[in-house]
Amino acid sequence: MSKFQASGVITITTDFGHKGPFVGVMKGVIAKRFRDALIIDLTHEVPAHWPPEAGFWMSRAWPYFPSGSIHLGIVDPGVGTERDILLASLSDQLFLAPDNGLLAPLLPEADRVWRLNLDRLAPLGITSPSATFHGRDIFAPLAAELAAGRVMPDEIGESVDDWVPGWLEDPQVTGDKVSGVIVTVDAFGNLISNIEEAMIADMPDAHVLFAGKHLNMQSTYGRAAPGNFLALINSFGVLEIACAEGNAAESLGTDRGAPVVVRRATRR
Amino acid sequence: MSKFQASGVITITTDFGHKGPFVGVMKGVIAKRFRDALIIDLTHEVPAHWPPEAGFWMSRAWPYFPSGSIHLGIVDPGVGTERDILLASLSDQLFLAPDNGLLAPLLPEADRVWRLNLDRLAPLGITSPSATFHGRDIFAPLAAELAAGRVMPDEIGESVDDWVPGWLEDPQVTGDKVSGVIVTVDAFGNLISNIEEAMIADMPDAHVLFAGKHLNMQSTYGRAAPGNFLALINSFGVLEIACAEGNAAESLGTDRGAPVVVRRATRR
Amino acid sequence: MSKFQASGVITITTDFGHKGPFVGVMKGVIAKRFRDALIIDLTHEVPAHWPPEAGFWMSRAWPYFPSGSIHLGIVDPGVGTERDILLASLSDQLFLAPDNGLLAPLLPEADRVWRLNLDRLAPLGITSPSATFHGRDIFAPLAAELAAGRVMPDEIGESVDDWVPGWLEDPQVTGDKVSGVIVTVDAFGNLISNIEEAMIADMPDAHVLFAGKHLNMQSTYGRAAPGNFLALINSFGVLEIACAEGNAAESLGTDRGAPVVVRRATRR
Repeated sequence: MSKFQASGVITITTDFGHKGPFVGVMKGVIAKRFRDALIIDLTHEVPAHWPPEAGFWMSRAWPYFPSGSIHLGIVDPGVGTERDILLASLSDQLFLAPDNGLLAPLLPEADRVWRLNLDRLAPLGITSPSATFHGRDIFAPLAAELAAGRVMPDEIGESVDDWVPGWLEDPQVTGDKVSGVIVTVDAFGNLISNIEEAMIADMPDAHVLFAGKHLNMQSTYGRAAPGNFLALINSFGVLEIACAEGNAAESLGTDRGAPVVVRRATRR
Repeated sequence: MSKFQASGVITITTDFGHKGPFVGVMKGVIAKRFRDALIIDLTHEVPAHWPPEAGFWMSRAWPYFPSGSIHLGIVDPGVGTERDILLASLSDQLFLAPDNGLLAPLLPEADRVWRLNLDRLAPLGITSPSATFHGRDIFAPLAAELAAGRVMPDEIGESVDDWVPGWLEDPQVTGDKVSGVIVTVDAFGNLISNIEEAMIADMPDAHVLFAGKHLNMQSTYGRAAPGNFLALINSFGVLEIACAEGNAAESLGTDRGAPVVVRRATRR
Repeated sequence: MSKFQASGVITITTDFGHKGPFVGVMKGVIAKRFRDALIIDLTHEVPAHWPPEAGFWMSRAWPYFPSGSIHLGIVDPGVGTERDILLASLSDQLFLAPDNGLLAPLLPEADRVWRLNLDRLAPLGITSPSATFHGRDIFAPLAAELAAGRVMPDEIGESVDDWVPGWLEDPQVTGDKVSGVIVTVDAFGNLISNIEEAMIADMPDAHVLFAGKHLNMQSTYGRAAPGNFLALINSFGVLEIACAEGNAAESLGTDRGAPVVVRRATRR
């Protein structure tokens, strides 16, 4: 049972970048239907055509948003083809994205998932979309209607329990070892993995193998000497590789997709 | 007769980028005069000192914004010299920009065009601007006053019917051929031209010559195999050159200014 | 005596860039506590781990914001270590930043400066922050409470009159010469110094030595021929080195930190 009650808040996550009016036009479409929406950009710098990062950040960010928020994720290389659009409810919030694996980190814990029936959007005046910009022609106007409380998920989609799987393998957890992967790199060059704090909670003496280096766990960046590499559980609860006052991704020549291994220390 | 009735919405299009507080300060100036304005960034990544892209996107984007919106375009290499400022009304919206060719795509269809008389801004407290940041000192406060409905165009400018022409030649349309130019490149590397759908509407068998390649028209990106080049009419109604799941501008080594030709197929 | 009366306006200045959801999540946290806040991004493109640029722009930008604004500056390499957080009142506005030199351009003229006592934030529900993202866990929720007028500075901090000094030396002013430094470079490649207009006001015949060149003062960019270098007092009242319709930083191979000297002309 969805606990969603619209509060007028909409977040947008895309790979559109900041060149061109693409995000701005989506906001115009929303404002035209619902002037009092509060629109917040999550990020528009997801790497082009790479849905996993959008879903990763949406799944980590939503608890910090007001109850009744709607989160749009638009990384959509299949726009205009037969790919579907999914709507999911989780706790008191809604998520809308193409059915291309983007929402994989969220769907297993969702309360309900719907596949949109585009025919049912016609009464809302959402018709004849372009073949290439569903962000403007479907996602934005539908988000406005949902955020204004003028339509509910059951009216526009059918409940489903299958969808396109995520693009990243879940971390492998064995007794002595956890293997994961770098999902994204932030503006500081910090390398952010999909290894969750709970997966290594019983390894207090853990050390991290990454890019040929053995790294110790620290509590924060400032605990290592400037220029030194470190590993830490970051503020979103996942393992991160950093360089104190430096750029780990550049210094190590690594990027998303790089493997990360956490092991128990061999001697205690 | 202008149908403009202020709704409090203001869009901003500039070449200021995101370094420094320039756009933020404009928003502060607007908020100081009109707290309830809804300010939407169209883009701030117009190439430095290149007005045509600002006007191109403003002319394509405005129909997606609420009635009564005011659109600021500030790409202004002549700031502080004798260049004028134009205000135009088109349908139910207003446009404000330097008289340097920026608004060329909009002015021919405008209902009215005014040249601002800066002396008449003094009663609004818009005086003694800096020589280098009219975005903050003229455009932002004037937009706030217009958006709040506290001043009307006739009070601050004289109607004119001449202005600085646009920087780009209009496409050449002959019976068998349409020649245009790339106006801008988006964050995906898609190359966006000034050739309108209507110009090639009677050429259903059109093919496109670009950067030494013959390209077929497709309906959307996903209709070509990944890595293949294609041409399509994009979501703003103009011809675009793309690379399926790739970056056409990088792969082809081309950028804005490159010529595009559409021809009828030679054999049918 | 602080003249601050909350107006609900919050600005944010960081080095977070636009990759990842960091700024968006801060806005979510603010909206969750105070839905009617007006949040304005000043810039998020401060060079990583370099507080002086954040404080420089905040000190130049605040007069353009509404009375009762709260300005957050978060460039915070020491996050999670013992560094303190400062709150300052200046005229009718508040400033919140780590005690790491960021606010140096503002603090000497502040009406009052407080050092936050984190224990006193507990009644506001601001507790147990992460070690690495105080922007989300302390700055954003506290800004929301201050902007909503639900807490006053005296309730959460102690007045102090010492703090970590700024990272940049103040300009040296002698009779015939003023020596300063480039603080930041804008998106056009204009090089912006810390030399104030008043410091050279009695040198009407000043010329500028920069990167081995002698430059004349102009009133605006358009007063030099395209491609020529010039110096001017910019719209924020400081000396700036520019290249008319070009990029001075790239052309001169210089960046922040470069020395600038203003001299009287040797012969009159």
